[in-house]
Amino acid sequence: MSQSEVPALRANQARLAEILHESCQFGAAHPYGSDTTETGMARLSLDDSDKAVRDWFIKSAESLGCKVSVDEMGNIFAVRPGKNNDAPPIMMGSHLDTQPTGGRYDGILGVLGGLEVLKVLNDNSYETEGPVGVVDWTNEEGARFPKMAVSSGVWAEQVPLKDAWNLKEVTANHDSPKTMKEELTRIGYLGKNPASYRSNPFAAHFELHIEQGPILEDQAQKIGVVEGVQAFKWFEITVKGRDSHAGTTPLYARKDSVLSAARMVAAANPIAKRLGGLTTTGIFETKPGTVNTMAHTVVFTLDIRHMKNETLSQMEEECRAEFKRIAHEDSEKGVEVEWKLLVDSPAVEFNPDCIRVVEQSATDVCSALPQTHPDGKLWRRMISGAGHDSCYTNTRCPTSMIFTPTKDGISHNPVEYCSAEDCALGASVLLGAVLRYDKLRAE
Amino acid sequence: MSQSEVPALRANQARLAEILHESCQFGAAHPYGSDTTETGMARLSLDDSDKAVRDWFIKSAESLGCKVSVDEMGNIFAVRPGKNNDAPPIMMGSHLDTQPTGGRYDGILGVLGGLEVLKVLNDNSYETEGPVGVVDWTNEEGARFPKMAVSSGVWAEQVPLKDAWNLKEVTANHDSPKTMKEELTRIGYLGKNPASYRSNPFAAHFELHIEQGPILEDQAQKIGVVEGVQAFKWFEITVKGRDSHAGTTPLYARKDSVLSAARMVAAANPIAKRLGGLTTTGIFETKPGTVNTMAHTVVFTLDIRHMKNETLSQMEEECRAEFKRIAHEDSEKGVEVEWKLLVDSPAVEFNPDCIRVVEQSATDVCSALPQTHPDGKLWRRMISGAGHDSCYTNTRCPTSMIFTPTKDGISHNPVEYCSAEDCALGASVLLGAVLRYDKLRAE
Ligand SMILES: NC(=O)NCCC(=O)O
Ligand SMILES: NC(=O)NCCC(=O)O
Repeated sequence: MSQSEVPALRANQARLAEILHESCQFGAAHPYGSDTTETGMARLSLDDSDKAVRDWFIKSAESLGCKVSVDEMGNIFAVRPGKNNDAPPIMMGSHLDTQPTGGRYDGILGVLGGLEVLKVLNDNSYETEGPVGVVDWTNEEGARFPKMAVSSGVWAEQVPLKDAWNLKEVTANHDSPKTMKEELTRIGYLGKNPASYRSNPFAAHFELHIEQGPILEDQAQKIGVVEGVQAFKWFEITVKGRDSHAGTTPLYARKDSVLSAARMVAAANPIAKRLGGLTTTGIFETKPGTVNTMAHTVVFTLDIRHMKNETLSQMEEECRAEFKRIAHEDSEKGVEVEWKLLVDSPAVEFNPDCIRVVEQSATDVCSALPQTHPDGKLWRRMISGAGHDSCYTNTRCPTSMIFTPTKDGISHNPVEYCSAEDCALGASVLLGAVLRYDKLRAE
Repeated sequence: MSQSEVPALRANQARLAEILHESCQFGAAHPYGSDTTETGMARLSLDDSDKAVRDWFIKSAESLGCKVSVDEMGNIFAVRPGKNNDAPPIMMGSHLDTQPTGGRYDGILGVLGGLEVLKVLNDNSYETEGPVGVVDWTNEEGARFPKMAVSSGVWAEQVPLKDAWNLKEVTANHDSPKTMKEELTRIGYLGKNPASYRSNPFAAHFELHIEQGPILEDQAQKIGVVEGVQAFKWFEITVKGRDSHAGTTPLYARKDSVLSAARMVAAANPIAKRLGGLTTTGIFETKPGTVNTMAHTVVFTLDIRHMKNETLSQMEEECRAEFKRIAHEDSEKGVEVEWKLLVDSPAVEFNPDCIRVVEQSATDVCSALPQTHPDGKLWRRMISGAGHDSCYTNTRCPTSMIFTPTKDGISHNPVEYCSAEDCALGASVLLGAVLRYDKLRAE
């Protein structure tokens, strides 16, 4: 049997919807309707609800016959044996953490879709050539600890373990923020295994994810065959002025860090607009933070994105020049501005073999569907606007991704939604891609 | 003896410097030099260091023979009896709380200067016509609980007790902020006496304070005879957008609360500049506050000030119009903007009798000094840029203030400084003003 002759197995829509719902009881938040499924999520990485869903995930995977291990970043690997268990596993991975005002699909679908794939293999007593597994990567969102996909980054040896362990939370405990290592220890997920692709190699990594943008929905298409990810960088920018009295300090005598930082945030937007990229400030903090004192310090974040590495660099350079000008020429007595790089994620091109098996699987799965798209194609190749753990795994093993439609293109928001049907279609494409790659590696 | 014939008593410079230093051990922070006096303060209202200095203040006042009482806002009143104790006391008042990055003089000088006045009266066995006392007002700064002078405001029945008690802290415990009442109870300063000028009337209120601005220093003058206070308002402004993904949401589809709020902060400044007033944003908070999600909500503060009530209103109107324009026309898919008034402090004119006795006392005290000012006058009448408890007492009893020079005009900063000599001069003017007013009330 060649890799094109894999059996036409399909995910079970009801069963997948059921575990999506079951697992989302841990960390459910921000309900927007009366049904228990009409809720968002606040499952911050390594908080109590994340511990609960991890425990649930391990129990579920073990009940399917998987061997489960945890590494020193709390990444959880559940592996189902194949014929030849000396070979590294094909992993299906994503994350179970969410944004503080997140939804029920971002990351979650990729992990639970992986579990559903294993269930279908079990149901059919299907023996893969090598092992196949599911991975839950820790803190993909970078919401609580501000480095996205930091734990797949450690696995890929692109992020030093110490840097990751020492990352401080930004979403709670502002007075005494906890580190990743403290929280890994507290919830009992500081594993003993090294977080490294060397001791824990993969044959490939496939990630099912919601698109998080409007394209599939707008085009009435069902599946995105993801060829790559746009480039992005995260910065923490510190503006230092002087704290002084709001009522007695004349405007000309001020070193007003808030006013200067506000001008910087406003100035980044037209640069992004002109160059066809994106800039976003999600965190903006003022210290000491009282009504009637100019802040001596503002710390704000800047997330910049572009399809092309070169244009991203240009966006960064223009922002640096403009912020410098604001700090020196446009801020009365002047302020200081410092840039710190938090995340540097160059544009990613996924592995051609992986892309091809996803495309074959998508063609197969979509062929059974009623045609809704004008050109008759229910899947499309596309580039991801968001970063994913797959960006890091791609540096160490063949990788690609599968996207499903996202209602109104809205993600990182409680109303984020992907229909049960579309979730199951995505899981079926994942299943077909894994089986095809399993044959490919055996050939 | 008429009120102009009061004895020429003077404050003891060394003794006042000594208790300034002693009391500033509680809450000392942000040292800027090697000497123990070279430090700033972080004595947030009702925190542990504020409790410690309150205990110290009560002990000091009792050792001087004062009767001490505490009201339901934690205001502390220490009263030294006079000949006729049916008359209400003349109170010397200010506050012992500081900014988080505050100095050793703002407020503190007014309370400790009052203690020094009582010591001089004791040293001279001077019997006043009626009682004379010192008051420490709670949370004048409005730093921890964002309503300046809130407790003199309750005493003046200008702020409802419940509103004050329910004020939530903004400088710590962001996840579960404490209320004023909780903290009053915790540190044991929730007194039984009503906070009201009705049950606890004053004959007059005199407040010694550092200028907090550059005028006296620039003019080589020693004493400000304060005629009034500029008008100001504090607002909490809420901008509501929509949380969505920083990498997948096109610029045109955004409701970006941070970008819009940054534009508003930047837009307020030129309005203030043109109209000759001040605008300051000291707090700017983003929710949920992660790098890669647009904040759904920004809450920022706006402190606006002007000498004239009418122009302050115009500044407010222009800011409201401009913020509205930004929210609707200059914010892609639009944001919502809501204004909440935190403090409304119209321009204040102090009591002519109080101003006159301060002026007489300043003339007397300064007459003994070497002439440094070109016109030969070491004091000047002036308007305060900062608000004070005296703004509220002035609505219920004759009030005025005395200013001392402030190094480089810097206040609400650890390096805030007023020389020991200037502190003592200010306390001597306070003493002379109180004795003159004591004679005046008896006439
Ligand atoms: N998928 C996802 O939302 N990941 C977060 C990383 C990013 O900001 O792109
Ligand atoms: N004196 C002083 O700093 N008071 C705080 C009130 C104000 O902001 O003006």
